[in-house]
Amino acid sequence: MPGQAARGWAMKHALSVTRQQNFAAWYQEVISEADLAEESGVRGCMVIRPWGYGMWERIQKLMDAEIKKAGVENCYFPLFIPLSFFEKEADHVEGFAKEMAVVTHHRLVGDGKGKLIPDPESKLEEPLVVRPTSETVIGAAMSRWVQSWRDLPLLVNQWANVVRWEMRTRMFLRTSEFLWQEGHTAHVDREDAMKETMRALEMYRAFAEGPLAMPVVAGEKPENERFPGAVATYSIEAMMQDGKALQAGTSHYLGTGFAEAAGIKYQDKEGGQQFAHTTSWGVSTRMIGGVIMTHGDDDGLRCPPQIAPWQIVIVPMLRDDDGDAAVLDYCRELWRELGALSAFGEPVRVLLDTKAAKASNKRWAWVKKGAPIIVEVGPRDVSEGKAAVLRRDRLYKDDGKLNTAFTPKDDFVAQAAGMLEDIQTTLHSEAKARLEANIAREVTDLAAHFKGDEAKFAGWVEVQWARPTGAALDKIVEQLKALKLTMRNTPLDAAPVDGKCFFTGEPAVERMLIGRTY
Amino acid sequence: MPGQAARGWAMKHALSVTRQQNFAAWYQEVISEADLAEESGVRGCMVIRPWGYGMWERIQKLMDAEIKKAGVENCYFPLFIPLSFFEKEADHVEGFAKEMAVVTHHRLVGDGKGKLIPDPESKLEEPLVVRPTSETVIGAAMSRWVQSWRDLPLLVNQWANVVRWEMRTRMFLRTSEFLWQEGHTAHVDREDAMKETMRALEMYRAFAEGPLAMPVVAGEKPENERFPGAVATYSIEAMMQDGKALQAGTSHYLGTGFAEAAGIKYQDKEGGQQFAHTTSWGVSTRMIGGVIMTHGDDDGLRCPPQIAPWQIVIVPMLRDDDGDAAVLDYCRELWRELGALSAFGEPVRVLLDTKAAKASNKRWAWVKKGAPIIVEVGPRDVSEGKAAVLRRDRLYKDDGKLNTAFTPKDDFVAQAAGMLEDIQTTLHSEAKARLEANIAREVTDLAAHFKGDEAKFAGWVEVQWARPTGAALDKIVEQLKALKLTMRNTPLDAAPVDGKCFFTGEPAVERMLIGRTY
Repeated sequence: MPGQAARGWAMKHALSVTRQQNFAAWYQEVISEADLAEESGVRGCMVIRPWGYGMWERIQKLMDAEIKKAGVENCYFPLFIPLSFFEKEADHVEGFAKEMAVVTHHRLVGDGKGKLIPDPESKLEEPLVVRPTSETVIGAAMSRWVQSWRDLPLLVNQWANVVRWEMRTRMFLRTSEFLWQEGHTAHVDREDAMKETMRALEMYRAFAEGPLAMPVVAGEKPENERFPGAVATYSIEAMMQDGKALQAGTSHYLGTGFAEAAGIKYQDKEGGQQFAHTTSWGVSTRMIGGVIMTHGDDDGLRCPPQIAPWQIVIVPMLRDDDGDAAVLDYCRELWRELGALSAFGEPVRVLLDTKAAKASNKRWAWVKKGAPIIVEVGPRDVSEGKAAVLRRDRLYKDDGKLNTAFTPKDDFVAQAAGMLEDIQTTLHSEAKARLEANIAREVTDLAAHFKGDEAKFAGWVEVQWARPTGAALDKIVEQLKALKLTMRNTPLDAAPVDGKCFFTGEPAVERMLIGRTY
Repeated sequence: MPGQAARGWAMKHALSVTRQQNFAAWYQEVISEADLAEESGVRGCMVIRPWGYGMWERIQKLMDAEIKKAGVENCYFPLFIPLSFFEKEADHVEGFAKEMAVVTHHRLVGDGKGKLIPDPESKLEEPLVVRPTSETVIGAAMSRWVQSWRDLPLLVNQWANVVRWEMRTRMFLRTSEFLWQEGHTAHVDREDAMKETMRALEMYRAFAEGPLAMPVVAGEKPENERFPGAVATYSIEAMMQDGKALQAGTSHYLGTGFAEAAGIKYQDKEGGQQFAHTTSWGVSTRMIGGVIMTHGDDDGLRCPPQIAPWQIVIVPMLRDDDGDAAVLDYCRELWRELGALSAFGEPVRVLLDTKAAKASNKRWAWVKKGAPIIVEVGPRDVSEGKAAVLRRDRLYKDDGKLNTAFTPKDDFVAQAAGMLEDIQTTLHSEAKARLEANIAREVTDLAAHFKGDEAKFAGWVEVQWARPTGAALDKIVEQLKALKLTMRNTPLDAAPVDGKCFFTGEPAVERMLIGRTY
């Protein structure tokens, strides 16, 4: 893992388990120790705690601005979708079996034995499904809103909770209920709809590489990984520190299929009736899981400054004596000065942590949460006009000691905004280097490359392929499945092809990424 | 209705029905014509359209800032609550009958006859309730988070959707699913919890009177109107233009009852175990219904500038000829100049409406939506350096013509921010005058005062009362119910009592507002 080798000797870290010892257990420990989320006692549903929800609020704020900039308007659609809406969408009702929460009653009553039960009298004539995604219900609305080519493009988005009943859940990565945004758009033709599909994909790529400092590969998913009903599905894929891929956002071109099911028709300029071409695209709280597994280290989370709820935390070192007032005054002045700064075009977010607890405990709590800069101020710092500054991305010196910089206060204030921007860049560069170093392009034997247990860091493999379909594709998917591998996407920025299909030997038409995945 | 009499003659208005003709039909027409919301096809659930959702986003933004300022942290809790949680809360399970959406299955399958059904194999062992409010599930989390007096006060809030199965629904006012914020706090003692209860109430009052320009009366609800399990419930009540009351926000002091049910215990400074005192408080999308019925007129909504998604809309008058380019350039310059202004401490929100539609249709669409200022620009305005400015709160002159002010562009830019602030104040003053003029304090016969059908504008009645409880209270509630009346609250700012109880003749202890209600 980065950093550890450079320090050259066994560190004692803030967490009880390291990434190398057990990545899955480490992930859970970061979530718990950084107060990001916890189990709720409700199957598959988590409680998102203030530090985790604060990251989501930052993601929402920054992403929402991009969505609005593109002319997309926010709306809100119902949580419940009548069961019959899914019958329209299902190609073959008999083959349909989807994990969704179904509401069947609308009242609770006592059962006469001291327990509550759904009142049998309140059974719904038509069960309602808790939305797993909103294409059907938004399609129904669009069919009312779209009459003429003048009404297109129609661009809407909603921030909402959705539910997909998951058998095996993992916090942020796969939970039964999660928070997301879902964009839904309707267009006059394929060209305009594809433009929007790619705009959303590039918005996600820029967002991941920017505010999340999380490098990704943007590309098209293979046919077998398409969203059901989509003509084309695109994704951004990020590489976690264990080498696995995380699909962190998707954008779908849906053709006219959903428009036909929902009746989204428009009169064209010549007076003819046409079906609209639709798209949908979404990102979710899963992104937070990606940030943890991209930037976390053995001391907890390292939160990218752009999405950190607090970017700088000031911890006063109080001694319950007469000197405390001077320390607090000095801290308040520092808090005011830092709060007047701007970084990333926004005011710097500074917390003065006055909670009643030992200063060293507070320092380590903020290290585990990943606050980008932690500043400690004690009586001596006050008398010397200094502050003890700790950058979360450079926590230790080579000798294993904390890399605290005792800096004149005014110097620190002058450097702070640049330091935040530098931390953001550093986190991105580190992750980018890992991503680039761990895509193997000369692999001839997948089984040998990915040999070993799942914990082995093997990165991704890029192959050239002929984009086979049907039975030929199914066979490849099965082969890969036996190795616990999946195709991730065909990178938009891949080098041109110059060889044969890894699987079929036919002339290759594009490149495909293969890896283990979350 | 205000304004109409002053104009002195029958206006032709933008809506097909006036407030006086049929207030309920007028309300529905405003919602539809202003593109605020619409029926979704899902029972009791509405689609909130961009202009309505934009108002909610403004409400969220401004209220969230106040919530954070008070040190309350946002979290997110599960949508689903296990049925057993309600058994803890229910005083008498056998008497419990609550309208709530109940999830009983987690999969859909085909029934073999071409229909989808909940898969009988997927029946949940314990049904899940879609949250109607989150006291129980947040209480369970608080019981994990609170150990010591040092952990208190614990102040959390969530923005979420909740579901209460309603038999009769009305958009924004009473829908099965609605959006809200729910604050939940835990404290060491009654005093601290009551302080928080009143802080939230005053935050709501200031928010209603400020951004919503909606005057309210803040006070305590009578015992029979308390939130189930609360020791005291406070509300803000607004007067709609038909004289009915709208409860627009509530704040509850819950005593230790919820803490006892959930096990929220803490170690006090002396080492003893104590139950926390909790509060909860919330406002919802219902506020938007209140804004419509407070400020709407017979031409649609008049949106208070502070919560208007667009405060100024520029409509270019294009003729599909060579002059259009100059008009658009002039409009863009105006758009830039206005966008550089600040009103209410925020940048002014200006839209240049370039949609392909007739300028006069666009003007009336924005009138119905209630954009505070509409500016039209045609070729003649460009050559004269002017703009045609229409204030939504002063739409007509006394002669019934549109009150358009042809203003030199630079003058308008210089006035615009002040004009927005003036519109906000004007809307508030108008509503405030109506509220104050329509609280009758000398009524001796409620039946006579409220005689006539429900459409009759009768305002509210303030009486003095002795705060009777038990059977005496029940009797009063029944008497009022027969007149379709309810007690609203005991105003915090009421004059001191100086007489006898309106109902019992005992010495009065406080004043109580009575009215019809939504």
